[in-house]
Amino acid sequence: MQKKSSFREIRYGEKRKKILQSAAKLFARKGYEKASLEEIAACLKLTKASLYHYVKSKEEVLFLIQLDALEEILAAVKQVMQSGLSPSQKLKDIISKYVELVTQKHIIGALRQQELILPKKWRNLIIAERDKFDNECRKIIQEGIESGEFKSKNWKMSYMATIGALNWILKWYSPQGDLSVEEITLAMTDFILMGFGVEEQQVLAQVIE
Amino acid sequence: MQKKSSFREIRYGEKRKKILQSAAKLFARKGYEKASLEEIAACLKLTKASLYHYVKSKEEVLFLIQLDALEEILAAVKQVMQSGLSPSQKLKDIISKYVELVTQKHIIGALRQQELILPKKWRNLIIAERDKFDNECRKIIQEGIESGEFKSKNWKMSYMATIGALNWILKWYSPQGDLSVEEITLAMTDFILMGFGVEEQQVLAQVIE
Repeated sequence: MQKKSSFREIRYGEKRKKILQSAAKLFARKGYEKASLEEIAACLKLTKASLYHYVKSKEEVLFLIQLDALEEILAAVKQVMQSGLSPSQKLKDIISKYVELVTQKHIIGALRQQELILPKKWRNLIIAERDKFDNECRKIIQEGIESGEFKSKNWKMSYMATIGALNWILKWYSPQGDLSVEEITLAMTDFILMGFGVEEQQVLAQVIE
Repeated sequence: MQKKSSFREIRYGEKRKKILQSAAKLFARKGYEKASLEEIAACLKLTKASLYHYVKSKEEVLFLIQLDALEEILAAVKQVMQSGLSPSQKLKDIISKYVELVTQKHIIGALRQQELILPKKWRNLIIAERDKFDNECRKIIQEGIESGEFKSKNWKMSYMATIGALNWILKWYSPQGDLSVEEITLAMTDFILMGFGVEEQQVLAQVIE
């Protein structure tokens, strides 16, 4: 009985994941505001009633996509934290993962939406996950300052500038544009590490790796 | 007759400016979405009909506030361009003006609103003004690269990172917070100039000035 239930849970989870992916694509194509739960169902050849079994509202869909993205970046950060790499290499890896995430064609539409439109309980969960991410990044920056690798005089502001530079990619990036994700990653890493005062030869060494 | 008409025009312009300032404050307090043209009128003890003589819609109010802000920064940039200062000093002055603008309590609400909600004709005017600003900044960056002061390998991306870092201030800044505009300006200048590869002693020299 236990096993059967688990199997059901897995199937349910997989189905829900498919729904979220399809919805994310629709948001990216039409914009969140203009997309409807009916269309999400239609894209998957589901009735609205069967879709309702997995998600109850468009806001819930948006919340789950944003939560998934945050969990993905958080998992990457946790891995980086255990890597034993230097602080600038850790920061570089996080920038790389972040750029990868915000340029993923299928979730751009969902990430562009501010969490402000979500009901408070979900918004708070998103903010809590983001706080976890911020905390891990803070540890890396402090490690870099302690080791003398980072020369930031106001690390909090340097971090806000970093997050601003990276999140702004969502505003201007187009998957049809002429900049590759690799070029963006390279240039952002370059700018941000230099902004933290990491010596250019260190940045270059990392880029060449 | 000519003179009378000019006087009228000035009075009309002044009145409209007052309306925009009052509306901007209302947007900052209530959020753009929740504010109405009726309330804008009420704040100024005007009837909706007399307000209508100056502005025809909430979108027009938003458009005019955003346009004013852009014109303000553009005027500052043009002044900087004629200053004969070094490229890093020019960039520093622009960052300073930009931070001053995006932390101005009374227009935060209007600037936080994306221009996407504006009708196309107005949106295009906003974009055209922003393009002018981008062009002036581009000249400064190219000047800095040519003189060897800036060491950016991808100046377009460095510029996008800069604009992202600065615009993101609108997302996190609170006039009630514990960071002063001066602290933000100093830290942003530091991070961005270092991001462009300006030697730390140059940045420091500028900060001390």
